Amino acid sequence: MNGAVSLLSTLRANGVDVWFSNPGTSEMHAVAALDEVPDMRGVLCLFEGVATGAADGYARVTGRPAATLLHLGPGLGNGHANLHNARRARVPLINVVGDHATYHSRFDAPLDSDIQSIARGSSGWFRRSARPDDLPSDVADAVAASYGPPGQVATLVLPADVSWGELSHTPSSWPVATRRSPSVSADDALEAGLSRLRTKKTVLFLGGSAVSKEGLALAARLAAATGARVVTETFPANQDHGAGIEAPERLIYLSEFAISQLQGTEAILLVGAVEPVGFFGYPDIPSRLVPPDCDVVHVAPPGSDTIGALEYLVAALHAPEVNVASGERPARPTGELTTFAMAQAVGATLPDDVIIVDESNTSGVHLFGATRFAPPHEWLTLTGGAIGFGLPAALGAALGGGGRRVLAFESDGSMMYTPQALWSMAREGLDVTVIGLSNRSYAILNLELQRVGATADGAASRHMLDLENPTLDLAGVATGFGVPSQRVTTADDFTAALERSFATPGPSFIEAVLPKGLS
Amino acid sequence: MNGAVSLLSTLRANGVDVWFSNPGTSEMHAVAALDEVPDMRGVLCLFEGVATGAADGYARVTGRPAATLLHLGPGLGNGHANLHNARRARVPLINVVGDHATYHSRFDAPLDSDIQSIARGSSGWFRRSARPDDLPSDVADAVAASYGPPGQVATLVLPADVSWGELSHTPSSWPVATRRSPSVSADDALEAGLSRLRTKKTVLFLGGSAVSKEGLALAARLAAATGARVVTETFPANQDHGAGIEAPERLIYLSEFAISQLQGTEAILLVGAVEPVGFFGYPDIPSRLVPPDCDVVHVAPPGSDTIGALEYLVAALHAPEVNVASGERPARPTGELTTFAMAQAVGATLPDDVIIVDESNTSGVHLFGATRFAPPHEWLTLTGGAIGFGLPAALGAALGGGGRRVLAFESDGSMMYTPQALWSMAREGLDVTVIGLSNRSYAILNLELQRVGATADGAASRHMLDLENPTLDLAGVATGFGVPSQRVTTADDFTAALERSFATPGPSFIEAVLPKGLS
Repeated sequence: MNGAVSLLSTLRANGVDVWFSNPGTSEMHAVAALDEVPDMRGVLCLFEGVATGAADGYARVTGRPAATLLHLGPGLGNGHANLHNARRARVPLINVVGDHATYHSRFDAPLDSDIQSIARGSSGWFRRSARPDDLPSDVADAVAASYGPPGQVATLVLPADVSWGELSHTPSSWPVATRRSPSVSADDALEAGLSRLRTKKTVLFLGGSAVSKEGLALAARLAAATGARVVTETFPANQDHGAGIEAPERLIYLSEFAISQLQGTEAILLVGAVEPVGFFGYPDIPSRLVPPDCDVVHVAPPGSDTIGALEYLVAALHAPEVNVASGERPARPTGELTTFAMAQAVGATLPDDVIIVDESNTSGVHLFGATRFAPPHEWLTLTGGAIGFGLPAALGAALGGGGRRVLAFESDGSMMYTPQALWSMAREGLDVTVIGLSNRSYAILNLELQRVGATADGAASRHMLDLENPTLDLAGVATGFGVPSQRVTTADDFTAALERSFATPGPSFIEAVLPKGLS
Repeated sequence: MNGAVSLLSTLRANGVDVWFSNPGTSEMHAVAALDEVPDMRGVLCLFEGVATGAADGYARVTGRPAATLLHLGPGLGNGHANLHNARRARVPLINVVGDHATYHSRFDAPLDSDIQSIARGSSGWFRRSARPDDLPSDVADAVAASYGPPGQVATLVLPADVSWGELSHTPSSWPVATRRSPSVSADDALEAGLSRLRTKKTVLFLGGSAVSKEGLALAARLAAATGARVVTETFPANQDHGAGIEAPERLIYLSEFAISQLQGTEAILLVGAVEPVGFFGYPDIPSRLVPPDCDVVHVAPPGSDTIGALEYLVAALHAPEVNVASGERPARPTGELTTFAMAQAVGATLPDDVIIVDESNTSGVHLFGATRFAPPHEWLTLTGGAIGFGLPAALGAALGGGGRRVLAFESDGSMMYTPQALWSMAREGLDVTVIGLSNRSYAILNLELQRVGATADGAASRHMLDLENPTLDLAGVATGFGVPSQRVTTADDFTAALERSFATPGPSFIEAVLPKGLS
């Protein structure tokens, strides 16, 4: 048995069942190994950022590690941006990066590259396998590292001769990494939280595993019992949302508004989240969003048992059960296709048990509210701010979602980073509805330009923030990548297209032509 | 005056006149600065790999440094693969990477990232600007570093507050980096070369600046005088080619054939090139391509005065002038559109003074021969093996080429990495003819699979090397990105489309449907 087969077998033994791959020459034995490990699904991605973003989406939906296969340093580089998002989502993710044969590296061949430096930007664990016999334990160590908790990116370099070399003996079984239980919060952290809830004007700030249905419900009980406010992080990795699920306020993206939102807070209890800070620094706006004298209590750090911590607080406070608010879904919109009408259409038509992947940016401001009473669904967002996440994550979420439909919102500017994901959706026959949001501009940047105090009234700077001349034909790009597409310009047509897509197996793409720019 | 304006002004004073940009919030003042420095052309790229590949193409054609504007670590990561190619092409290239404000970094905001580690994989020089007043000298130092010689990638991090901060005083002039002359070869290297040419079965191995028209002519004289063979590197950064230009044999890509090609060589004189080695390591094939007992003489290292070195050898040997071979262009092909017919059509129709960007991979094997007697042109290839180079490099070459037409050959698999470059070609109104080569497979990998000795006869592995199901609609993708496109399936139609494109201003895309796989 060669190294590649042992690597794949060990991944499989550890519950990894999809391999998001963009292979090259140095990965040919790894590709061939797919024939030997038939219950590992190899998914070909046409670009590495698709593979890494898909692995992120898969891991967010399944909670299990996802794996990629990448081609040397340039492949890892192309995958970096979505690994950055995965790192911020704290998901378990294992990169297998093929490299030159060990004896070939010293010749500095054209593709030779500093894989370790590139990995350092995203990976909490890194190893270069030295011998085929080491591979099973190297893989198990990578899986263990990826688990954390919290989850992290682990990168294993697979030299070509380690991949094609034979193991001196085939192990009778493959090593399986133990997944440690999330740590339980320290008593003093819990007591500190409890005392603040009892005495201070408190915000419960939820992120990570605390924005599950259970976590949100427990936090609502604490709020009802103490008058605390519940605020969820701006960009959750995976939040439960919809009818029957508590929907507390979300922290606003723009620093100045977030600071207003948190004004008067005397204590912030962090549950599954770190202290919120400005997404960027702006002139004359503080980086920290909580008031300067606010107590910051780390009740349950990311990766810890957030539900257990919330349950402790609920029990200690004898917080009563609360009823989740109920309400109506929006009516089907008609007339002009605005960002508001687009959101209403989604709220009106969303089927049961959908996974939403949200890279809607400025065009999606109304979506979360409009789906408040739609059937329960999961909501995945851009955790790390590196755009080009949405389509790959939708691919991975569809593969990890056990047949559930994925609905992806993708802004035009962001879609241009990783449109190749569409092809893999078509090839794998996945039920994904992609809404391409066309506002023909980097609308967020037109806003940010003013916020950072830049005066840009010239043609040269406007030219850099505008996506027209030529207008991108989003539906045409999607069709080119093999996904059936249409372009709609009215709320009525959009709603109808959405319903058709929900009823049709396989992927479909709807280009929603919105008013230009911010709206 | 703020830092961004001083940065742009200093770049401009150093001869940089195009800024390949993919900006985000932290780069907004840099974007606004374009209004203040009107003779700097900002070119918006929809993906960072487009910006870096375009900078590479621009630098290869102009010999001057090209500059990019990128957004934090993820932006630099997305740009890495084409920076890798630029590093291997030894071109001067300056990345300006925006980052968080200096005071904001310690908060580990979502986009915070280890820019330096990512830069280490591609950049020979790295600095983080600390103050607006430092920017002019930081930029001049970056330009000086990029010059080498040999040229290299220099990465300057621009924190947002350094960009928006005011200079304490505006300098009366901007610092201009001195470009050092290429070093002259040491006497003993030249004498060693000379003695081998006189006594041994010698190969002159040319690369870098030695594959210019002048270098090729001088090498041909040495060959005529001594019986030495001239061989050029497999993947030149920019080689002169066509009628009236010497066209020595090129080193074959496949190691086993390259070893045969160099068999019997007693001495190899390296001029503008390093010793050739296998692109990858293969089982049972040596990494080194020259015979084990071959003398390796470093006559003129990359970045040195290769022409001076060749002139010295010519003078010392009294090598006579030689006539360049002349010959006929191929006839216009007819019938089936094979890779051979495709090449013939190019050879038959190529206009004067074209820049060819070649990412044709297996589909382009006949191109170099078929254009042997076409009008003189430049030939740019994939120096670093990181695919996704062709379309971005064509964009940059067109901007640097002073109005000359660019002809880009782009394989379907490779095209999928950076198709976004097409949009920038359309927006900038550049005369680029793109041939999309559709063979519906990673043909090179089907070949490599056998060469590395992998047995892959299963459906799972075949699935990873095949680009069908669905078939990529290359012309559709190009149309979606705003470039007029057509698909042709016969040699006659291809030839006609090529001629129409050459006669039409602006970009055009021709999808050449070739037989499936290797042909």
